[in-house]
Parts: sequence; structure tokens; C-alpha cells
Amino acid sequence: MQPLRRGLGDDVLATAEQQVTALQQRFSSDIQATLQVAIAESESDLSPLLRYHLGWETKDGQRSTEGAGKALRPVLCLAACDLAGGDWRKALPAAAALELVHNFSLVHDDIQDRDTTRRGRETLWAIHGEPRAVTAGNAMRVVADKTLMSLAGSELPPELVVNVAIELTERYLEMIEGQYMDMSFETSGDVTVDQYLDMVGRKTGALIESAMYMGALVATGDVAAAKGFGACGRRLGLAFQIRDDYLGVWGDPNETGKAVGADIRRKKKSMPVVHLFQKAGETDRGWLSEAYAGDGEVTGKDVEHILELLDRLGTPGHVQAAARAHAQQAVDVIVTTGLASGAEGTVKAMAEFFVTRGK
Amino acid sequence: MQPLRRGLGDDVLATAEQQVTALQQRFSSDIQATLQVAIAESESDLSPLLRYHLGWETKDGQRSTEGAGKALRPVLCLAACDLAGGDWRKALPAAAALELVHNFSLVHDDIQDRDTTRRGRETLWAIHGEPRAVTAGNAMRVVADKTLMSLAGSELPPELVVNVAIELTERYLEMIEGQYMDMSFETSGDVTVDQYLDMVGRKTGALIESAMYMGALVATGDVAAAKGFGACGRRLGLAFQIRDDYLGVWGDPNETGKAVGADIRRKKKSMPVVHLFQKAGETDRGWLSEAYAGDGEVTGKDVEHILELLDRLGTPGHVQAAARAHAQQAVDVIVTTGLASGAEGTVKAMAEFFVTRGK
Repeated sequence: MQPLRRGLGDDVLATAEQQVTALQQRFSSDIQATLQVAIAESESDLSPLLRYHLGWETKDGQRSTEGAGKALRPVLCLAACDLAGGDWRKALPAAAALELVHNFSLVHDDIQDRDTTRRGRETLWAIHGEPRAVTAGNAMRVVADKTLMSLAGSELPPELVVNVAIELTERYLEMIEGQYMDMSFETSGDVTVDQYLDMVGRKTGALIESAMYMGALVATGDVAAAKGFGACGRRLGLAFQIRDDYLGVWGDPNETGKAVGADIRRKKKSMPVVHLFQKAGETDRGWLSEAYAGDGEVTGKDVEHILELLDRLGTPGHVQAAARAHAQQAVDVIVTTGLASGAEGTVKAMAEFFVTRGK
Repeated sequence: MQPLRRGLGDDVLATAEQQVTALQQRFSSDIQATLQVAIAESESDLSPLLRYHLGWETKDGQRSTEGAGKALRPVLCLAACDLAGGDWRKALPAAAALELVHNFSLVHDDIQDRDTTRRGRETLWAIHGEPRAVTAGNAMRVVADKTLMSLAGSELPPELVVNVAIELTERYLEMIEGQYMDMSFETSGDVTVDQYLDMVGRKTGALIESAMYMGALVATGDVAAAKGFGACGRRLGLAFQIRDDYLGVWGDPNETGKAVGADIRRKKKSMPVVHLFQKAGETDRGWLSEAYAGDGEVTGKDVEHILELLDRLGTPGHVQAAARAHAQQAVDVIVTTGLASGAEGTVKAMAEFFVTRGK
């Protein structure tokens, strides 16, 4: 069962994917340059750890490009600035700060989840141990703050810089609350899909919300317009995460680099499993509770049985429909801002790409 | 050998101690109220962990006052604002932010050092596990940022709020660098006293520097004057830390709550030991290197031998003289600001208290 690209001809997908790739290419070198200046300006004994995590260096300090991320958040920030009629270069400090905050959270996540690899490379704590990796994550976060504050060096009014700093701080606190809810869910059997979406809205949606909010605010100085862009970003973030959850179970291993049913094996309480627990009848739920109790992974036969249950309850269609619904809301919200005539098309392409991507 | 209060009659000490206590009492209830509003405004599932760490609640959520800290940094921030001629109430958000940043670093420090108790209470990670404690620490830091940004709600000009935010961010990055140097020193035998002081200046001095900088800047809006106060703060921080190192070896167990030679047993590379390694002859250094090699604590007889070596090399006097020298520099620097006629006396009292305190 591989209902990827459902409801779309491949040419439509190609167009959405091409549009997103074009956006990434347009902004990529400036984002990279801003990040490199930010890290270089805070050079210390810790810097090699930051450069390694960001994929710029091997663990021996040799230059490298493997392991670099998609820079999704900075691209959305700059696109929002551009679409709202601003000079996107002015938003570069905010874009770089977002990427650093995101990477800070990855460094700490890897420690908390005991993940020893990320994007095919050893994680920071696996190489340097936990104490140093915790500290390196904290340093990444402070470099993010410094970078954001460099907005003050441009001709942006200081009130706007303060507003942007407050926005990032509040969304970032939401992200942390979402991470904490996520941990609590791991040990709780009674999580509804709505609770799950609330958690994911914080954990993934909040930072993407702030990406588009900050971009639009730098462009317009208009808080109401920026909130509209932010609301669009939050829904895009939800669509992105729900599709991520989908791919974690039904993604093509050749594309995702994960085994079939990877998230099932790891007992990840992602949206498919939350939906399953909620919809399963009493007997199935009893069996599921046992399968998910205790430590260790779910074994081969049980994985197959869970995949069957998911199919029987229509979970794949439900999850994908939820991703689509949030993507559509993102488009609807951006239309209501009435601010940017080109915004609708770009947000549509982004939303389409988020819910149809195969990796 | 207990050369505490060296060079001072008890009445002079009493006066310095009384002055510092009077300062603490003057500001304490406003600091506490600002902190409580800050935590309450970011209420979430994580808040009970923050309130527990701050000593306001037991681990079962009952109200408590045990385990509260000295609030040294906020007191210095408000005192600087007051001494520089400002309305110290305007600096309360900065003061509260400092206390929260400090406590954030304690939460992560306890995880990194595997300390299971602090101020006689279980540490956060010992109760809730590492992943949740890392997250709670991060939340504490974000609440600090939010609190600092609430300076923008007062009548302070936004440029000044941005300047204060940049200052705290930069000093905080220094603090993290200092923590990282500290970890590197643990596994390195070749640390000089100068390198150690550089590390401590960052780890402890930087945040106290920013305390006095921010207080003075809120009062005057004058960056040059604020830098003078900041320089004073950094030296006070060094004096404080060196005295801390002194007490960690020669403090009265009844006062410090630590066993005699506690830091020797734990192989802490604090200033006395760094001085000892640097000054010891070849034979003694060889013996020391063996005693400090490998895991586990230093044992009973070896502790006594190290204490003898320290005495023979005059380390206690050297360490205490270094604390005094930095305290004197703090007073000298504040005089050069020429800003506050009352500042000299207060800084003198603070400096005197820092280098003579018994706990």
C-alpha cells in the first residue's frame, strides 16, 4: 500500500517540487553565508562541534558538505518576507537564527532520544559525550540569539527588533512545551488525535509559524499582517509533520532511508499509532497495549499485525487527509491576508509539496 | 588551619556582611514577586519542575521555601541601577532574567556533573530523569528571555532593550564557553592558574558582569558608564569564585555543609589544585598525577597528603590573596566611573563580604 501522490498527476507534483526547489536554490547561498558568519563571529573551543553538527565539517575538522539539512525554516522566512513585498535580505538574520534554534533542538533531541545517528552521521553526543553535547546545543541557541539581534544593525526600527525577539522567544517556549508533552505521551496510553495535534502544533508548528511571522513583519512592520503569515506557517508545519508521520510508517524505504514500518518498530507514538489506539475495538486495543508495554522494539510478526490493523481501520487515508486539510487551511489563511498577490501560488506549491513528498 | 577573615576584625566583617544582608533584604521581595509572575505567565506542564528547582515547591507540589538561592546576581543588578542613580524597580525584569539564566545553568550543570543533590534537595534530573530535566532547563532559559523582553513594556527606549538583550546574550555565551573550558580542564593535567582564571572569568564572571552592566544601563542609558559597572562586576565575580574554591578545600564543614577537603576528594580542578600542580616539584607532581589519574575519588590518606602539600607550597595564602586582589580591582574600577558617590562604599562592602564569607 503506497498511496503517495494521491489525487495528483506526477506533473503537478513535479511543478510543486520544482517551485520549492527553486525557492531553496534562490535563498540557499545567502542563508549559508549568514550562518557561517554567525558561527565564525562566536569562534571558541565549541565551534568545531557546531560546525560538525551543521554538516560543514567531519568529526576530524575536515571540510564537508554531507549531512546538511533542508533549511526549511529559513526558506519559509525569506519567502514570507519576499511575498509580503519586502527585501528578503533584511530577514536573513532572522532566517539564520531559526535554522540555529532548530539545530539546537536537534542536538538536545538526539541526547534525549539516545539517537546515535542523524542524516547518516554520528550524533554529537555519540562522539563527544552528553555533557559536551548539552553545552554545544546551548551554545547553538545563544549564537541564534546573537544572530537575531544583529537585525538591530540594519535600518530596522528597534521596536520591530524587540517584537521579533519576543515572537521567536514565545514560539520557542511553545516548542519546548511540545517536546515535553511528547515525552509525556510516550508513557501514556490515552492520547487522542486532537491532543496529539495540539502537541505537534507546538513542537513543529510553532517555529514554522515564527518563520513566516518574522519574514512578514520585517517586510511590512505590520503585526496584523505578520500574524496572518504566522497562522499560515503553523498550518504548514502541521501538514509537514503529519506527512512525516505518514512516511515514518508507509514511506518508501529507498526514499526515506528508514526500514518499512520503522516508527512502528520503535514504538513511536506518531499520528498513525495514536489514531489506531483511538479507533481500535476493545480486543485489538488490549492486544496493542500489551505490544506497546515494556521496553524493547516491536517484533517482526507484531509489526505486520499492526500494519494490518492500521489498514483495516483506514488509518493511512485518515492521516493523509489530515495532512491535506492542514495544507488547505494554510492556503486559505494566506488568501485572507490579501497582502501578497503571488503568495497564494507559492504557499499552494509549498503545501502541495509538504503533503506529497516521498522523503 | 583556618585563616578565614584574615586581616579583618570581626566587627569590620560584620559591617560588610550586614550591609550585604541589608541590600538583599531591600530587594528580595520585589525580585521574588517578579520571578513568580514570570513563571506564572508561562504556565505549562513544565512549570512544576521550574518551581521545584527554584525552591518554591516540594517535589509533590506543596509550597515550600527551603532550597532558595542567594539571588546574588539580581541583587547586584538592582544595586548597580540604584547606585548609578536610577529607579531600581525598572531593572527588575533584567534582575529576574539573570536569576533564571543562572538557575537554567544549574539545572544543566547538575545533569552534566551527575550531582544528585543541591542545597540539600534532590536535583531535578535525579527526580524526573535527564530528558525532562534538560527540557526544563531550556524552558527556564526561555522564561528568562521573555522576562528580559518585558523591559520593553516599561518606558525604556527600545534601543536600550535591544542593547541589554545583546549584552546578556554575549555574556551568556561566554558563560557557556567557560563551562566548556571547565570540562576540558577536568581531563587535562596542564592547566595554569592564568588559564584557570580566564575560564572562571567566563564561567562565573561574565554573568555577574552583565548584572551590573544591565543595572547601570537601565539607570543611565550610558553604555560607557555601564561598561565600567560591568568591569566591576566581572572582578567581583572572580573574587566570589576564588573564595568559593578556597572554601571548597579549607571551609568550615559546619558552615559550608561540605566535608573537610570536599573538592580534593572529588578531584575538582579548582584554583588550589591548579596552583598545586603548577608549583609542585617534579616528584610531587608525579605523585599528584597518579593520584588524579583514573576514575573514583581521592582516598583518605592521599587527601591528607594533598592538604599537606598545599600548605607547604603556601597555596591557601596564594588563593586568598588572589581573591583579595580581584576584590580590590572591583573597588578601583567603580571609583573610575566617577558616577556614583555612594557606589564605592557599597562595592567595598560587597567585595569584602565576598572574600571573607564562610559559606
